[in-house]
Amino acid sequence: MNDSHHSSAPTIGVFDSGFGGLTVLRALIEKMPRANFAFVGDTARLPYGSKSRRTIARYAVQSARFLVEEQNAEFLVIACNTASALALDAIQDAVPVPVLGVIEPGATAARQASKTGDVLVIATDATVLSQAYTAACQAQGLRALEKACPLLVPLVEEGWTDHPVTVEVIDIYLNELRAEAWARGLNPDTLVLGCTHYPLLRPLIGRAVRPGVKVIDSAEATAQIAAQMFNGRASGEISAAEQTEIRCFATDSVEKFERLGSRFLGRQVGKVELLDLGG
Amino acid sequence: MNDSHHSSAPTIGVFDSGFGGLTVLRALIEKMPRANFAFVGDTARLPYGSKSRRTIARYAVQSARFLVEEQNAEFLVIACNTASALALDAIQDAVPVPVLGVIEPGATAARQASKTGDVLVIATDATVLSQAYTAACQAQGLRALEKACPLLVPLVEEGWTDHPVTVEVIDIYLNELRAEAWARGLNPDTLVLGCTHYPLLRPLIGRAVRPGVKVIDSAEATAQIAAQMFNGRASGEISAAEQTEIRCFATDSVEKFERLGSRFLGRQVGKVELLDLGG
Repeated sequence: MNDSHHSSAPTIGVFDSGFGGLTVLRALIEKMPRANFAFVGDTARLPYGSKSRRTIARYAVQSARFLVEEQNAEFLVIACNTASALALDAIQDAVPVPVLGVIEPGATAARQASKTGDVLVIATDATVLSQAYTAACQAQGLRALEKACPLLVPLVEEGWTDHPVTVEVIDIYLNELRAEAWARGLNPDTLVLGCTHYPLLRPLIGRAVRPGVKVIDSAEATAQIAAQMFNGRASGEISAAEQTEIRCFATDSVEKFERLGSRFLGRQVGKVELLDLGG
Repeated sequence: MNDSHHSSAPTIGVFDSGFGGLTVLRALIEKMPRANFAFVGDTARLPYGSKSRRTIARYAVQSARFLVEEQNAEFLVIACNTASALALDAIQDAVPVPVLGVIEPGATAARQASKTGDVLVIATDATVLSQAYTAACQAQGLRALEKACPLLVPLVEEGWTDHPVTVEVIDIYLNELRAEAWARGLNPDTLVLGCTHYPLLRPLIGRAVRPGVKVIDSAEATAQIAAQMFNGRASGEISAAEQTEIRCFATDSVEKFERLGSRFLGRQVGKVELLDLGG
């Protein structure tokens, strides 16, 4: 598949509806220093969190095909909880390379963290409606309780990641979730951040949970599993001295992507290319 | 243009990126009881407020063509501030019928309301960046100061239209806006709601502004002007006894549109048809 002339290192395709997936890319870069990366942010059609399965699958497959067919990605990471929850099967059917979503790694990390077997998950509307975390946690022998927190993404995008209003909104959501857990007789000791925007709120969320509750970042967990899968396969093929290449594509304003993306990536995004998926 | 067999009454096409435009449709229905309406909510690609001019224009023109070419609309109302600000010219070029946006009517109503000639405008990111209200107000001899309030749409969509957090967020935004007005030596006596979601926050906003400040709802102002333009032209063509027909189309989940739309329309939306614009 790979006929790229940029580098002999393999390319990992990473896809999100917007900027949030850059938290996953950031974790991937740290754990896979020898890979090249091509990232698509489908910013013209974000957010996916409030859309239907049919629409999300259609959009996600377009990005996946671009990454495999035009960027020669040999491995895909769906760095978007909503697309992982609603479109993983459709993407796996559409492209001939391995595809990893963020839900399974999040559930696996929750199993490793939880002693009581009861897990809380916060995510977007669409992710929660899909019940994908509940199913993935059940497959790991865990009981999961999910809650949609639709205000957290706009609060992050407003830049209010350390703002009293955000503290209050997180408290409201987590109190509602704890009351629901209590009513169901659950004893949760683990909270999964089921949206790639939420790692930017990790300090506030860490202060809002009860002592002893572990906070799981799906981005970290996904990068861990991707690195295990990929580094084993890629070892020996490339020299460690090679420079990693990172190409970013956005379906809407590249200026905005360059400006906001650095918050999520933790460093400059660099030059972003405009991508027309025909939307 | 009109070969519809449903009714001899003319059809008005109304377009928004989502549900918010239903506040405009609601005002139009009240003021134009003899017209039929076809409404498109481009929910698969909402929100427009954070997207670029190029992308917004491309989306808006697709909806406008559908309304004119397939729904035989003889008159279009762009019930979306962002699309009015960024795509009115593109839509007027693309279809052969009169097109009315919400910006000009808002500015006209502000001129009628303001004694000092200084006006504040709150809107989405994209609307503010376009400076369309500033230009429209200047053309009316007003000085306008605009502010983006990106959290208000998600707060309305979360249903927090009478919530302490929303009160706090409105206070923060309006305080910042007043400080900016003061620093510029303005003496504003009018506040324009430059987003079709904001009428649902009108009670909270009305309590947050200073006594004597008039709050202008662009939806109301637009319906007023549309009714003047259309009722004059349509008078005599149809009988007042005819039943108004309202057809709603959404590009994403029709169930969600039916459920949430009623909040904005102030009554049941009824059956919504799924529309594929090829996005």
